[in-house]
Amino acid sequence: MAAASEAEIIAILGRFNRVRRDDVVQGIGDDAARVRPWQGMELALATDTLVKGVHFPEGTAPADVGWKSLAVNLSDLAATGAVPAWSLLALTLPEGDAEWVTGFAAGFAELAGEHEVALVGGDTTRGPLSVTVQVAGYVEPGRAMTRAGARPGDAVYVTGTLGDAAAGLAVVQGRLPGGSGSEPLRARLLRPRPRVEAGRRLGRLASACIDLSDGLVTDLEHLLVAGDCGAVVELDRLPASRALQSLVPDDVDRRRLQIAGDDYELCFTAPVAHDADIRALADELDLAITRVGEIRAGGGMAFTDGGRPADPPGRGWRHFGNGDA
Amino acid sequence: MAAASEAEIIAILGRFNRVRRDDVVQGIGDDAARVRPWQGMELALATDTLVKGVHFPEGTAPADVGWKSLAVNLSDLAATGAVPAWSLLALTLPEGDAEWVTGFAAGFAELAGEHEVALVGGDTTRGPLSVTVQVAGYVEPGRAMTRAGARPGDAVYVTGTLGDAAAGLAVVQGRLPGGSGSEPLRARLLRPRPRVEAGRRLGRLASACIDLSDGLVTDLEHLLVAGDCGAVVELDRLPASRALQSLVPDDVDRRRLQIAGDDYELCFTAPVAHDADIRALADELDLAITRVGEIRAGGGMAFTDGGRPADPPGRGWRHFGNGDA
Repeated sequence: MAAASEAEIIAILGRFNRVRRDDVVQGIGDDAARVRPWQGMELALATDTLVKGVHFPEGTAPADVGWKSLAVNLSDLAATGAVPAWSLLALTLPEGDAEWVTGFAAGFAELAGEHEVALVGGDTTRGPLSVTVQVAGYVEPGRAMTRAGARPGDAVYVTGTLGDAAAGLAVVQGRLPGGSGSEPLRARLLRPRPRVEAGRRLGRLASACIDLSDGLVTDLEHLLVAGDCGAVVELDRLPASRALQSLVPDDVDRRRLQIAGDDYELCFTAPVAHDADIRALADELDLAITRVGEIRAGGGMAFTDGGRPADPPGRGWRHFGNGDA
Repeated sequence: MAAASEAEIIAILGRFNRVRRDDVVQGIGDDAARVRPWQGMELALATDTLVKGVHFPEGTAPADVGWKSLAVNLSDLAATGAVPAWSLLALTLPEGDAEWVTGFAAGFAELAGEHEVALVGGDTTRGPLSVTVQVAGYVEPGRAMTRAGARPGDAVYVTGTLGDAAAGLAVVQGRLPGGSGSEPLRARLLRPRPRVEAGRRLGRLASACIDLSDGLVTDLEHLLVAGDCGAVVELDRLPASRALQSLVPDDVDRRRLQIAGDDYELCFTAPVAHDADIRALADELDLAITRVGEIRAGGGMAFTDGGRPADPPGRGWRHFGNGDA
């Protein structure tokens, strides 16, 4: 058996995919696919799977699984700048557990209601617990963001705060102390808020965008590869919530959490000329948008701390690799 | 824990799904959902999951899993009369096995190429082996078929032959003798051919349609419930391939296989006035289309054999029930 990384698996699938259609605008390899079934609007399509024991621990409340299974998908649409409209749900259950399904449906519906996403179909099968959701949404042609497009000189931004979900997981797993101060961190882990509105509004400002599912270093690297460029990341600018700062005051420990992924914030690049508009958007949405670095010519990622070169703070999650985070 | 059937699970999900959108034409509960993002054409959306050990035995060739994972989804679009266009793939693998993925991708791409379906995106995750595919396709407004619409007096038809896949499974499992005569049966199990073209052409002729995944009795029952009607099925008219007739000459044994599901043929109803057009279509497509019964007023399903009342031949597959097939 030859072990393959996620990127290699995607490459294999892409190599065999020889069908070329005029109505496909963006195929395999970005956060969402885009198709153009008619002139004047594109459809963005995305799918994500949550597996028990991998993406959520045994014993997670079914409502939280329902919420998160939709949230991670809406986050992919957000990174594309699309407005979500419909979802499909493929639910694999060890047995038909009406109580679990009811909880799941409630959590799913709560987030779906916030974004006016209709659940239009799906499939239920018997097997090890896992949830695959597909979402589809609208995006105006020319307004979609992709991973490609970052240019040397562009600023690198992130929305919200980083590291809360990883700290929340550490609390759930007993590696960090719990208590009421950690509640917002657990909430960020269990009920991430996809940045749908921010994504939609960033379409005209950003040069490239990705959502932070696997962590800042891993996901920013996707932007750099797609844009054939490099970046400097200012570690001392990574935004941290008060809850995280209070629970993990040590800089080194905190930064490790901040690049560990599962935050479902957006990481995007934009020409510096758009900086004022981006700040205005942050004010309008009441959402922190923080400039954390800069795109450079040439490949690779460098880090600074207080203006001085710094070591990388570890790595985020890799599905089939040996992540050390 | 309260055990729930598939229908109950779908009902729970539907109850919580309170988002109402004008662009949703057909929501939860049919073979495919339909949405209308723009005037003049509808999009049909469907998703189906295959789980190792449930939908395909351990040791199934990865290329066959790839083929079938797309085939069962295209079959849902066929039952709606839609022309497939795009697919998304959510692949859950125990480890990144490049050889398995390569085989899978080859089988998937082979069928995708036949129907010009582009793989536009997806997700790869680590976990117990399962495959969820989502497909989207076009259907002209007014031409889509649903499960609802059968009327008393309509004839009941099936495409192709029934029971081959169940016999193929029995061969694979050693319950029926193998040998070269059984090869077509194994092929029907491993590489079902979704009736996409037949479905598209039936849109103007059929009053209701469903694909035969769970077996004739189970799936026809869905049409009867949706249409608030009953049916008589003539067991002696159920079409059987020569391979099946030769391997299983006994009528009773063969009929049990013929309603066991996994054939991915279409079962549809149509006014008798359309019978000549349906026969002409069968000739044109070089595909058997057999009249196997009639829709009656009132609920329930009755069976005849040579014109005399007969017992039901057992039941097809129920995901969370105690199927006796």
